Amino acid sequence: MTKNVITISREFGSGGRTIGKLVAKELGIEFYDKDLVRQAAQKSGLREKYVELYGEFAPSSDRFAYNFVDIDEDKESPLKLLWKAREQAIVEFAQKPCVIVGVGADYVLRDRDDALKVFLFADEETKQARIVEMYGEAKLKDRNRVHEMDVRRSLNYKYYTGQEWGKAQNYDLALNRSSLGIDKCVELIVSSAK
Amino acid sequence: MTKNVITISREFGSGGRTIGKLVAKELGIEFYDKDLVRQAAQKSGLREKYVELYGEFAPSSDRFAYNFVDIDEDKESPLKLLWKAREQAIVEFAQKPCVIVGVGADYVLRDRDDALKVFLFADEETKQARIVEMYGEAKLKDRNRVHEMDVRRSLNYKYYTGQEWGKAQNYDLALNRSSLGIDKCVELIVSSAK
Repeated sequence: MTKNVITISREFGSGGRTIGKLVAKELGIEFYDKDLVRQAAQKSGLREKYVELYGEFAPSSDRFAYNFVDIDEDKESPLKLLWKAREQAIVEFAQKPCVIVGVGADYVLRDRDDALKVFLFADEETKQARIVEMYGEAKLKDRNRVHEMDVRRSLNYKYYTGQEWGKAQNYDLALNRSSLGIDKCVELIVSSAK
Repeated sequence: MTKNVITISREFGSGGRTIGKLVAKELGIEFYDKDLVRQAAQKSGLREKYVELYGEFAPSSDRFAYNFVDIDEDKESPLKLLWKAREQAIVEFAQKPCVIVGVGADYVLRDRDDALKVFLFADEETKQARIVEMYGEAKLKDRNRVHEMDVRRSLNYKYYTGQEWGKAQNYDLALNRSSLGIDKCVELIVSSAK
């Protein structure tokens, strides 16, 4: 079966955005990443809601989106609103063929048989080199923050989906970007989608 | 880099042997599965050792190989001997290009950059259909035994390697045989090896 939508979950520094963009280009379809969250938040008026609840000096919805240490159980919490808005945006975007990187799209689209769910990971060396290349030495020096990105993604995923992030059985395809290389990953994803 | 050796770990009923054989045929290389264990056991004189330790009515080394519930911590235990003999056989076989299904070959060959480590899994429906096809209805009716196969493989792997069985990060490639199908799995593995 042809896969119309490709979701890519990935470890920080594994080149998920680059690979996702190349796959979208190869297949001639749209590409979405966490800008989706921003758009979704704007659409749903989340920023306004958040300011209303937490005051004018609240952090931006963007930073807030990754702040999952302090989870608010209130049903009307901005986190829940954000997730709902994000879900709506993903479902909407996925009405046309596209690649979606991150934002839990694999879980949101779990019942779509025509969605190919990919998980990308890499060894520490590759991820560190990638982070220096993309964000500079300073980012890498703050080792805790780099590791924290994956921990946050993992906690975030678990919280919203109840599933283990990075467990092979939750995906159609899990690829080691270090041993396979970017070009091969793109080739395998494109081939799996056809 | 061309991959000379392909190791395939798999859930029971996911079609690992079939896929492994097709990959080996496609690449024109040797195929090995758990018969390797039997050969290794024979080579190392394990059966004799086991009989010597446990008496003449000991179960066959083959059944014994999967009996990991009752782990013997004794350094000279047949389990340890079996693992050593198996390890030696894997290293020996992997001197020439080949496909090895199961028997922890991915862990034994973990330092070989030219080894492609594959994990195959499938959903319950696919696995059950496969088990009926391969072993008949009777096997499937004994649900606990079917599930037990994966639990045993998982415990066995954890015991010898200290790693989690089926965790994507331990492999180069993890494939969902249910959503991708056998032919696509073969194609993706062959393509990754080239």
